[in-house]
Amino acid sequence: MSLVIVGTVAFDAIETPFGKTDKIVGGAATFAGLSASYLYDNVKLVSVIGEDFGDNIDMLTHKGIDVEGVEVIPGGKSFFWSGKYHNDMNSRDTLITELNVLADFDPKVPISYQDCEFLLLGNLTPQVQQSTLDRLEKTPKLVVLDTMNFWMDVALDDLKSVLKKVDVLTINDAEARQLAGEYSLVKAAKIIQDMGPKYLIIKKGEHGALLFGDGQVFSAPALPLADVFDPTGAGDTFAGGFIGYLAKVKSVNFNNMKNAVIYGSALASFCVEKFGTERLQNLTQEDISLRLKQFIALSKFEISE
Amino acid sequence: MSLVIVGTVAFDAIETPFGKTDKIVGGAATFAGLSASYLYDNVKLVSVIGEDFGDNIDMLTHKGIDVEGVEVIPGGKSFFWSGKYHNDMNSRDTLITELNVLADFDPKVPISYQDCEFLLLGNLTPQVQQSTLDRLEKTPKLVVLDTMNFWMDVALDDLKSVLKKVDVLTINDAEARQLAGEYSLVKAAKIIQDMGPKYLIIKKGEHGALLFGDGQVFSAPALPLADVFDPTGAGDTFAGGFIGYLAKVKSVNFNNMKNAVIYGSALASFCVEKFGTERLQNLTQEDISLRLKQFIALSKFEISE
Repeated sequence: MSLVIVGTVAFDAIETPFGKTDKIVGGAATFAGLSASYLYDNVKLVSVIGEDFGDNIDMLTHKGIDVEGVEVIPGGKSFFWSGKYHNDMNSRDTLITELNVLADFDPKVPISYQDCEFLLLGNLTPQVQQSTLDRLEKTPKLVVLDTMNFWMDVALDDLKSVLKKVDVLTINDAEARQLAGEYSLVKAAKIIQDMGPKYLIIKKGEHGALLFGDGQVFSAPALPLADVFDPTGAGDTFAGGFIGYLAKVKSVNFNNMKNAVIYGSALASFCVEKFGTERLQNLTQEDISLRLKQFIALSKFEISE
Repeated sequence: MSLVIVGTVAFDAIETPFGKTDKIVGGAATFAGLSASYLYDNVKLVSVIGEDFGDNIDMLTHKGIDVEGVEVIPGGKSFFWSGKYHNDMNSRDTLITELNVLADFDPKVPISYQDCEFLLLGNLTPQVQQSTLDRLEKTPKLVVLDTMNFWMDVALDDLKSVLKKVDVLTINDAEARQLAGEYSLVKAAKIIQDMGPKYLIIKKGEHGALLFGDGQVFSAPALPLADVFDPTGAGDTFAGGFIGYLAKVKSVNFNNMKNAVIYGSALASFCVEKFGTERLQNLTQEDISLRLKQFIALSKFEISE
């Protein structure tokens, strides 16, 4: 049994009010893979990189992540994204997007990945998400899809098509409103669930996350942080932690999903503390355990009637 | 022992995407008083109304609320506010503000109110909040102050002066940022606590509320609602429920404050379901008990390490 993650493995250059980086390692599958690797030990990536990525791939293999499905294009250049965050950290401008090897990405699913029971379709073109799913011979036990407004703008039909095959969708509140064409998140959740996903997670950044499914709602807090250093990858980290926890406990039900949302939130809270993947590379199980205790203290109350 | 609430008792005319009202009863003390009356049975109001308020005061006395401190100005007209909410319900335009009898409001604190142990300085000019506090012979066990950005704009010095005497401040996230001059809410909380209030509650509307104090943080969820019919008075209702719960349990500590935030949130979630005070007038203890169970289900998770 394994957890397969498809998404970008790439370079980012990031500017925030706290500073600026040169090209550093980023990409949805990188963040999600690192995050999941702390909770589950059989994580496999599907992606594409250029020859320029070089030794950087070791960051993933050192964490025990299988990269057999990460195709290296000889002479190719890796996907590169550069962005600048505004002072409120909630909005950003894209400065550069170089698709490079991502432009012709045709996902390869190695035979050794056919034991996949948990599949994360990371933020990427819906066509590639669909192809990855199609190339698995057996329908996974749980398919989670993460996406963003960009794909709703340019590839809505493809996105709606793959959504039919998905168990859990993770998007932010503005995206949920856009996808459903409805302002009320409660009503938007119903509309989106009718598109395919039984479960919907609405990520609200500093305001936490909502999980809808099985006729229930769960509201997860976000840890109030003194400084958000760099939000890049927080959503991918959340998705990786979410599915990593479910792969670990193996049983998919609403109570486990609630815990999975808390694990995803806890890992995302580390991600934003430093630039890029820096904080995610060096976590200990004790760090994670302490952070979970903070989440429990943050939201626990006892009312007896 | 009693709970005293100072604030406006007034008329509102409201327009939302769901409809429009003529002049209906509103005002911070009205909402807060109704809300508190469901939790505590010795609620006393300080306010001022015009002769035009007439029988409307019965809405409060029928709930057992003491209105001896609500001065009626013969021939005077009650405070009137009219506003129109935008489609997202998070922003509104003020159409009319007629101060009327509020312009010369000099709060009267009857002798029978001198048993006050819990004091809510509802949203109102900081000078009137200060005067009410000054006219109590004994410092109350707990002073809660609710305010808004308007008073930060026009009466910041007065506000800062009364804040020194306050135990709990309730404001929204934008107001916390404005008052502290700091974007990070964690840092803003520290700055505001240094101004006087040991405890700070940051109200985030559909995103819930944060409670800071005793070196701890608590994040309360908001109930996801299919429709927010009219948000007018939700903050006042929250503050009334918060202090009403503490007056009921009498003991002020962080755990009780967490529960108080949940009670305040539960009562506010009713407030927004109908126009004005309509929903708050006809709640049963069973309604409240069921709503609290929803809040528990909404935020409870069990992670065992």
